[in-house]
Amino acid sequence: MESLHWLDAHYAAMPPVAAMRLSPARFAGDALELNAPLASHVNDKGCAFGGSLVSLMTLAGWGLVTLRLREAGIEADVFVADTQVRYLAPLYADLQATARVAEHHAWPDAIARLRAAGRDSVPVQARVALPDGGDAARADARFVAVAR
Amino acid sequence: MESLHWLDAHYAAMPPVAAMRLSPARFAGDALELNAPLASHVNDKGCAFGGSLVSLMTLAGWGLVTLRLREAGIEADVFVADTQVRYLAPLYADLQATARVAEHHAWPDAIARLRAAGRDSVPVQARVALPDGGDAARADARFVAVAR
Repeated sequence: MESLHWLDAHYAAMPPVAAMRLSPARFAGDALELNAPLASHVNDKGCAFGGSLVSLMTLAGWGLVTLRLREAGIEADVFVADTQVRYLAPLYADLQATARVAEHHAWPDAIARLRAAGRDSVPVQARVALPDGGDAARADARFVAVAR
Repeated sequence: MESLHWLDAHYAAMPPVAAMRLSPARFAGDALELNAPLASHVNDKGCAFGGSLVSLMTLAGWGLVTLRLREAGIEADVFVADTQVRYLAPLYADLQATARVAEHHAWPDAIARLRAAGRDSVPVQARVALPDGGDAARADARFVAVAR
């Protein structure tokens, strides 16, 4: 829970993120879940704005990588480097984004590389869920961590 | 100018977009430019938040396609379908996003398809500029228009 509180405060300090009214909901192992109310993200069609879906998935990925490195005792700046987004279905409910590290990613190796080279990249997969369990949007993103 | 006023009112009616404090700056032929103040988009590192860059590029692309169809007298709902984003350099200045239709796209053909089939997709390239003329981020996006 301490990690989620820290993350919440960190998000709230960024004006564009504070406007999103998101709340870190769950951090377990290799997944981070963020929630946000539809009312703050609704577009002209009454469903969630595409930019909000990307922003939430990006923040979930950034938070996941940041918390994992923090747990490993590594001080690093984390940047998003590139993202591929697919918008699959309109979302008429509150937003729930989950980010996971890609299956082929091994944290011990990544942390060793970061300690040795001062930087490394982390592949992340994120999704925004539909109420029925499907996906409103999916993203594959790459985050770069640079040791401070 | 009427098109920009219409677009501005349309953006302002969406809560997540109103929070971005953007202003449509220029619409000429195949390009739409949107501006937004850094203060509303700053992250924990003092530069523009990645999610804001994608949102602004997505809105520029959506606005461009919507205005062009409107000029052609077509009532259509416009959705973003997929986006590939590259974040190239941190931006420590106000945001300026420009969207253009991809060079290979021909509006007359697209409008004919939309009239015949009721839907079509439009490839858009967007960028957020650096003050020195380089790019902070680039995106390739595909928008789908569905005739009402």
